[in-house]
Amino acid sequence: MKYPTVFEELIIFFKKFPGVGTKSAERMAYRVLELSTEELAFFSELVLKSKTEIKHCKICGHLSEKELCSVCLDQNRDESLVCVVQSSKDVFALEKTNDFKGRYHVLNGVISTTNGIGPNDINLNSLISRVQENKIKEVVIATNPNIEGETTALYIAKLLEPFSVNVTRLAYGLPVGGLLDYADSLTLLKAFEGRKKI
Amino acid sequence: MKYPTVFEELIIFFKKFPGVGTKSAERMAYRVLELSTEELAFFSELVLKSKTEIKHCKICGHLSEKELCSVCLDQNRDESLVCVVQSSKDVFALEKTNDFKGRYHVLNGVISTTNGIGPNDINLNSLISRVQENKIKEVVIATNPNIEGETTALYIAKLLEPFSVNVTRLAYGLPVGGLLDYADSLTLLKAFEGRKKI
Repeated sequence: MKYPTVFEELIIFFKKFPGVGTKSAERMAYRVLELSTEELAFFSELVLKSKTEIKHCKICGHLSEKELCSVCLDQNRDESLVCVVQSSKDVFALEKTNDFKGRYHVLNGVISTTNGIGPNDINLNSLISRVQENKIKEVVIATNPNIEGETTALYIAKLLEPFSVNVTRLAYGLPVGGLLDYADSLTLLKAFEGRKKI
Repeated sequence: MKYPTVFEELIIFFKKFPGVGTKSAERMAYRVLELSTEELAFFSELVLKSKTEIKHCKICGHLSEKELCSVCLDQNRDESLVCVVQSSKDVFALEKTNDFKGRYHVLNGVISTTNGIGPNDINLNSLISRVQENKIKEVVIATNPNIEGETTALYIAKLLEPFSVNVTRLAYGLPVGGLLDYADSLTLLKAFEGRKKI
């Protein structure tokens, strides 16, 4: 017995989400049927708004509602220290430690030969521009502790060699093979303290 | 640090789905940001269409794209045997057995005093109408084997008493493929009561 077309399409779409298999997608599609017309209209609009109202900060690439994100606008934060992360998820994770008072640079991706993502596909050029302004003293690379993150870290270190800037890498306090946004605050804190020159 | 408003709203919405906690909802919201404008437009429309294009069959209450569902339209199915289930999910589950060749009646709910759902809130009146047509010989009640399902089953049995129709209930017992020592006492008790000659 086949599901109604729209229902089937909902299931297929929900399976695009991380950690959602067929059974979960089915349960989510059934949940959609239980929602009121108002809730569905709200959700439908929200999905569309996510593309227009959530922007990336012009300086660091972090998620933002305005041209510049709250971190880049905050004059109390140390602009000589920049932490490079793969995604905005990682900024939120690091902000939870309440310890890092520098700025960020969000790559919005990672160099990956298997996925065909090269250095030009990630937010690197603007990092060079920021470094060229000569205000940055240290760049802490906080890409994920896996092969792709490591490759990206080494690439950035090489890229920044001509500039008078210290390039450091988060310490391996992070569980290898894990994902940065899953690490607990204390592990993140330790990793920050133990950062080393590449 | 706060998420952008739309992003936060997406997280809150995703948490409405079964089995989705804060962390999963966050990951799903990030996934939304990665989707293309076309995919988001498609999804947004799909959510709206779910309300207009997925209907309930006028006879049995099962999910359908047309006025009547494929089971009610199928002349090869036995109309003297009707299986009463709580939700369309259960119809799809039973259809997978490829064994039941009768019709269905989907209650789209279950009597629940804790949730304030009474007999009038579920698809019962149309069941009475179907029984009154005198074509049905047996009604198999297949509501879930829990308090609410049991209450609903007993209520329906009582309701159908005045009519010349056999009312039966799915058997209780050990789930096939399960382990005896994992079964709860009540299930074991029911399995003993319902034991059959080999």
